[in-house]
Amino acid sequence: MPLKPRIERAISAAITHAQGNIAPPKLASALAYSVTPGGARIRPTICLSVAMACGDPQPEMSDAAATAIELIHCASLVHDDMPCFDDADIRRGKPSVHKAYSEPLALLAGDSLIIASFEVLTRVAHHDPMRAIELMKILGESTGMPGGICAGQGWESEEKIDLSAYHRAKTGALFTAATRMGAASAGEDPEPWTELGARIGEAFQVADDLRDALYDESTLGKPAHQDEIHDRPNAVTEYGVRGAIKRLEDILSGAISSIPSCPGEAMLAEMVRKTAERLTPVMPPVQAAE
Amino acid sequence: MPLKPRIERAISAAITHAQGNIAPPKLASALAYSVTPGGARIRPTICLSVAMACGDPQPEMSDAAATAIELIHCASLVHDDMPCFDDADIRRGKPSVHKAYSEPLALLAGDSLIIASFEVLTRVAHHDPMRAIELMKILGESTGMPGGICAGQGWESEEKIDLSAYHRAKTGALFTAATRMGAASAGEDPEPWTELGARIGEAFQVADDLRDALYDESTLGKPAHQDEIHDRPNAVTEYGVRGAIKRLEDILSGAISSIPSCPGEAMLAEMVRKTAERLTPVMPPVQAAE
Repeated sequence: MPLKPRIERAISAAITHAQGNIAPPKLASALAYSVTPGGARIRPTICLSVAMACGDPQPEMSDAAATAIELIHCASLVHDDMPCFDDADIRRGKPSVHKAYSEPLALLAGDSLIIASFEVLTRVAHHDPMRAIELMKILGESTGMPGGICAGQGWESEEKIDLSAYHRAKTGALFTAATRMGAASAGEDPEPWTELGARIGEAFQVADDLRDALYDESTLGKPAHQDEIHDRPNAVTEYGVRGAIKRLEDILSGAISSIPSCPGEAMLAEMVRKTAERLTPVMPPVQAAE
Repeated sequence: MPLKPRIERAISAAITHAQGNIAPPKLASALAYSVTPGGARIRPTICLSVAMACGDPQPEMSDAAATAIELIHCASLVHDDMPCFDDADIRRGKPSVHKAYSEPLALLAGDSLIIASFEVLTRVAHHDPMRAIELMKILGESTGMPGGICAGQGWESEEKIDLSAYHRAKTGALFTAATRMGAASAGEDPEPWTELGARIGEAFQVADDLRDALYDESTLGKPAHQDEIHDRPNAVTEYGVRGAIKRLEDILSGAISSIPSCPGEAMLAEMVRKTAERLTPVMPPVQAAE
């Protein structure tokens, strides 16, 4: 099965499970709303690509890993958009969850999705309990405290930011989770896969900085120039537009050379190249850009 | 070791782990603030009491179960107190987390504690992976959607509330988690323990309704009369003060007779009786009360 429908089917099954038939209807609806439309599903795509490059011997396990990562990523977007954080009215071109439903329902949708991401892994654990536990350990490390995405956002409340800890936690953690969980779900040691995830995460951060600086709200499908508004560190401020694009290309070449030797090495390199194309912004006219 | 220090030690170890040495300092501090002072620690006490009544063969496992329940309970209090829910300025006699820190940090502290509650269980999983998975399944069911505490709060956003689903999810779920996880952590079938948890949960709900209706903010250590203010269902409105107290007593007798046969049956019945004493409000003068 091609990756995209495989991912959508797994996410949709997890949401249906969380909606049950005894749930409060609005919150049940908010869960589905929070995870659709999916956009590129870049993290679960990376996770499954790595699992497949390693042979993907237990597709239920890699599906669960990919779904867990995407659910918790969506949870972080829902909470991020809330008034006390980015106060973003739109996300992926439609009203953000707290706008479409309410703040209490957005808060609860995020909480429920975090819990659902662990539950997805418990439901496949009978295939291989210690492997499921390993996946949950990586998921927890990458999302909670002291080094996961919660920690990353926590740095934004500090007067003195540890920039490398900030980026590693805020954006990098879920990308390293994606490569590591992909490998672990296939029964491989996750450690050699950390660098690939970290480099894709770095590339993604630079690309995001470029888009935030260069594009407007209608192109982004979410508010633009948020880094400038919230005075957050941004690669464009640091290197300029052309410098940031050069840096993006360097990081992605590094990513490709970091791929551990495995049956699907060439396929994975191709996936990283495609990610690169998707990430690199179409340059706007030079005056507008710099 | 007596229960109280055992619980505090386990919770404190989990928080130290989540604080790590690379974490953003304010969020790290907010985590400790969110779980102290502990109050009665009623849910972990029930969990450990049940585990001990079943022989408690793996104390690391029961400690982890009790800690997981309390961390996620504290997470729900932190999120509940936020302006978009109860907008409560005080909790356990001190400023609530969003007042002491900020709204973003309260949101992140809650998210991190939810994740930490699952992580605590992954860290003891090597003792018995399938038992740890079973504990995580109960934890997920009791806290997420469609029937856990998130669902319970979700019902508050519905025009038409399914009252029994609401109470079962909002308050009952974590009490049934406490008895079931206590039994499961000792290697026993959790199912026969569901009723004890459900009845203690019901009793707790009635006691909470009584306190909310009868006490003032300084006695409660949190805002009073919230049910009336938010027009939420309350046992005192339904049965009157004396009727609600009678109901509390009936539920607790039912709880005692539901205790499954086990080595520590008598000790457990005593624990429920003590809980009852703690829960039953000291009656204020009759005029003030009715």
